[in-house]
Amino acid sequence: MTTAIDVWGDCFTIAKWQAVVAEALESGGSEPIVNINPNDAREFDAIFLGGGAAGRFGAAYLRALGGRVLIIDRWPFLGGSCPHQACVPHHLFSDCAAQLMLERTFSGQLWFQQIEDKVVSIKSIIEFFRCGRVGPHAVMNYQSKEQLGLEFVLNAAFSIIDPHTVQVGDCKFHAKNLVLALGAKPVLSDIPGSTLKGVFNSQSLVENLDFEPGNTIIVIGGGKSAIEYGCFFNATGRRTLVVARHQVMPMLKDVESRAYAILMMEEQGMEFLENAELMTIQGDSQGKVKSVSIKTSDGIINVDTDFVFMGLGEQANSEQIAQILGLETGERGFIKVNRHMQTSIPNVYAVGDVTGPPMEMFKARKEGVCAAKNIMGQVSEYKAADYPDFMHTHYEVCWLGLSEEEARQRHANVKIMKLPPDNPNGFDVGLPAGDRMMLYLMAKPRMSGFHKLIIDGDTRKILGATHIGYGAKDGFQYLNYLIKKGLTMDDLAEMDELFISPSYFIQLCRLRAGDPHFKDM
Amino acid sequence: MTTAIDVWGDCFTIAKWQAVVAEALESGGSEPIVNINPNDAREFDAIFLGGGAAGRFGAAYLRALGGRVLIIDRWPFLGGSCPHQACVPHHLFSDCAAQLMLERTFSGQLWFQQIEDKVVSIKSIIEFFRCGRVGPHAVMNYQSKEQLGLEFVLNAAFSIIDPHTVQVGDCKFHAKNLVLALGAKPVLSDIPGSTLKGVFNSQSLVENLDFEPGNTIIVIGGGKSAIEYGCFFNATGRRTLVVARHQVMPMLKDVESRAYAILMMEEQGMEFLENAELMTIQGDSQGKVKSVSIKTSDGIINVDTDFVFMGLGEQANSEQIAQILGLETGERGFIKVNRHMQTSIPNVYAVGDVTGPPMEMFKARKEGVCAAKNIMGQVSEYKAADYPDFMHTHYEVCWLGLSEEEARQRHANVKIMKLPPDNPNGFDVGLPAGDRMMLYLMAKPRMSGFHKLIIDGDTRKILGATHIGYGAKDGFQYLNYLIKKGLTMDDLAEMDELFISPSYFIQLCRLRAGDPHFKDM
Repeated sequence: MTTAIDVWGDCFTIAKWQAVVAEALESGGSEPIVNINPNDAREFDAIFLGGGAAGRFGAAYLRALGGRVLIIDRWPFLGGSCPHQACVPHHLFSDCAAQLMLERTFSGQLWFQQIEDKVVSIKSIIEFFRCGRVGPHAVMNYQSKEQLGLEFVLNAAFSIIDPHTVQVGDCKFHAKNLVLALGAKPVLSDIPGSTLKGVFNSQSLVENLDFEPGNTIIVIGGGKSAIEYGCFFNATGRRTLVVARHQVMPMLKDVESRAYAILMMEEQGMEFLENAELMTIQGDSQGKVKSVSIKTSDGIINVDTDFVFMGLGEQANSEQIAQILGLETGERGFIKVNRHMQTSIPNVYAVGDVTGPPMEMFKARKEGVCAAKNIMGQVSEYKAADYPDFMHTHYEVCWLGLSEEEARQRHANVKIMKLPPDNPNGFDVGLPAGDRMMLYLMAKPRMSGFHKLIIDGDTRKILGATHIGYGAKDGFQYLNYLIKKGLTMDDLAEMDELFISPSYFIQLCRLRAGDPHFKDM
Repeated sequence: MTTAIDVWGDCFTIAKWQAVVAEALESGGSEPIVNINPNDAREFDAIFLGGGAAGRFGAAYLRALGGRVLIIDRWPFLGGSCPHQACVPHHLFSDCAAQLMLERTFSGQLWFQQIEDKVVSIKSIIEFFRCGRVGPHAVMNYQSKEQLGLEFVLNAAFSIIDPHTVQVGDCKFHAKNLVLALGAKPVLSDIPGSTLKGVFNSQSLVENLDFEPGNTIIVIGGGKSAIEYGCFFNATGRRTLVVARHQVMPMLKDVESRAYAILMMEEQGMEFLENAELMTIQGDSQGKVKSVSIKTSDGIINVDTDFVFMGLGEQANSEQIAQILGLETGERGFIKVNRHMQTSIPNVYAVGDVTGPPMEMFKARKEGVCAAKNIMGQVSEYKAADYPDFMHTHYEVCWLGLSEEEARQRHANVKIMKLPPDNPNGFDVGLPAGDRMMLYLMAKPRMSGFHKLIIDGDTRKILGATHIGYGAKDGFQYLNYLIKKGLTMDDLAEMDELFISPSYFIQLCRLRAGDPHFKDM
């Protein structure tokens, strides 16, 4: 390439990567960052277009299998949208929401500041994120280059010539296979007023917010992104109105768990309009949002606001490329693949968000691995199924397996273990407890979470679980794996709990395990 | 009994239990709370003396097996010292430490209050705990009575007549077996000045603290309790000097993990004197602590303080009872038992902390279950081994299996996966991330934790793991179970991570899993 930063051979420290990535992002410069081994004469087994979750893991796996692989990405870092615009900012904002809920609950008590009426700056938190996000980028570049030995061309505008050829600047790269790991982006609204200043989605929020939102925020959507960002906005001290076409949080199917999650949000002041629809967004003379009209079952309501957040789901980053290659695509541009991750065109694979939901990290990464295996001659199939799931409200909400209602449809003898137990005082009781819950436990016990385990009373196998609280996410990964292998309540009862454990599944099972005809708990 | 509160037959709500327990604790009244089924003519299979972790779980299990059981406890609640003086306050204080570290790190930034120089009241937090602790007590009474159907006599001074007979007031209770679940209490110091006002252990701190400690705190001991309370005192804004006879945190054997944990404490201002010994505590004319003398390798140093915390370990609550029954006891009064939990006297069992270390919840509960099984004719053995472990600093510190050093002694081809990776910038890099870590990640990445996985490169089995951060405790329970069953790095690589997961074990394994001769990471 005529102009490029060639990093091959030099060990770039993480600090140096941080400087390089920051510079490239700030300047918007188009100089590609090239890490290609000039001493390797082999043809590339694959070019991965996109070095995000799917591309980077697929490439790493292909390299681990002994193949040669090149990643090409438009961004100056590996890792994709996750650390730049998606998972990482979302987790930061959800941490802020959890922290602010705690501070507001204990405002003026113990050492806590008076914060009841304080409105926290969203703009400052966004700017704080923009400054910090190159840190993880730098680690992933370091890991990819120094530890995984990946070859890449970053910060690169690329064009596809054919299923074996990709061009960057004046340079053409050839490979036996092409893997499209192009990711996804938020669906844009076509509602009148959607292009006014003050309408954001998760991506544009972190990139473009340049004013302090006023005291009322409208969130459109009832899914993960809408709820997660809505809780953050709410926690900053703003009126937050969530407008959902159907239900909010439909993915959490267990009725009782969902009810607790929603109740806790409502108690924080979140407002939900279900079965409602945003009709128009009205602007002022400067082209800024000034109000919205919402159709509800009780008629149309108008709300003044300068900030509308669209949580409408994702669409594929596939347009031009799918057209050039003549790929079959489906709804929202998602590229159609079989279980080998093959597209409709020979030697072209697609992996990750670009192939459609679930838009989850493990799914993207495992699709990348699946493509890598097939390319290297190990026949492999993958289809995401029976996975654990989570989202944030002000809490971490985790679930896996069947809801109680689903379990009762399929099994005759379903048993439930939960905390708080069914009791006349409802949630106003002093358990569960756990890390990050202890202040609530002592003074606001109804806020200290909800745990539920769903068991087949006949086989004693665990059928499902939910946890609303903090600190159970890691455990749900392993628990899901165990449950797919047939974990029983007796197995759980035999484990060694780390008390006070964030979830109480082990101990609840142990209390009942002696009884062949155990009861609910 | 002549005077007693008979609760049999009435459904006591959790709120009602809360009132009853609070009243009994405040009045110090001696009226026993009796829940005995007058319609059951069977002899008790066992009396459990003590309804804490070991006694309550043992009794519940015995009941689940179809036996009849009576719990007698001196306190007006079931659950023992854990919710009253041990795990629950410790977790509250550790939550405060984590929260205060965060607030101090971001003091004056974003919405955080200016808190650098603020000294937080320890007395207020202790009082906050004293008010809140009856909440969990009430839930456990409710659960034990309404859900588990346990019979009990609480708030009861009792005396043992013989291995089958226990007396409360004018009433004698008979059973086929006696199970001693009497718990433990902090070891008292015999150093001169140990009885001065201002010398506390974990138990007396929550019961007796009636003044605001000054700005220097001396912690004696290097174990879990000393470090956990020391970090809390430090986080309140006080100089905290930890005096350990040998090492601090010796239980965390992985050298690198321990070094990170200690470094992070030192960066919070904790001071450690290892291989040092408290010689005397000096008092003032009112009998209050005014200074301490400490012998170090550099000579004796004197430090002014009004507050000394003793974290010297635990001794059995066994004295009189062991003597009356003629039981064999060992060091610190711990009752000797075999793997069936049988003491040296026929039909007398002992379970939980009264039998000695490890003083862990799972060990106490499982010993209770083991005794119950043996009493009910199911031959059962138990000996705590190969368990996961954790403690708090300002962080949650979890570990399991082998340290890297232990692994290298036993295996020829040990592989390590960790975050941050070995790199020229050390810990000053932007990963790991995770829930509760996101603010650090963005602006103080060296504080965002340390994860390490230790693998046998030949069998690919996981040998050990440590996690310093937040949110991995639940996962370590399941991970430990899986590792004992032979979990490999390839199994981990196949799991579905919930990203951003608090630990990175799944994804680190997946990046390497394709390689039969994978490298460190």
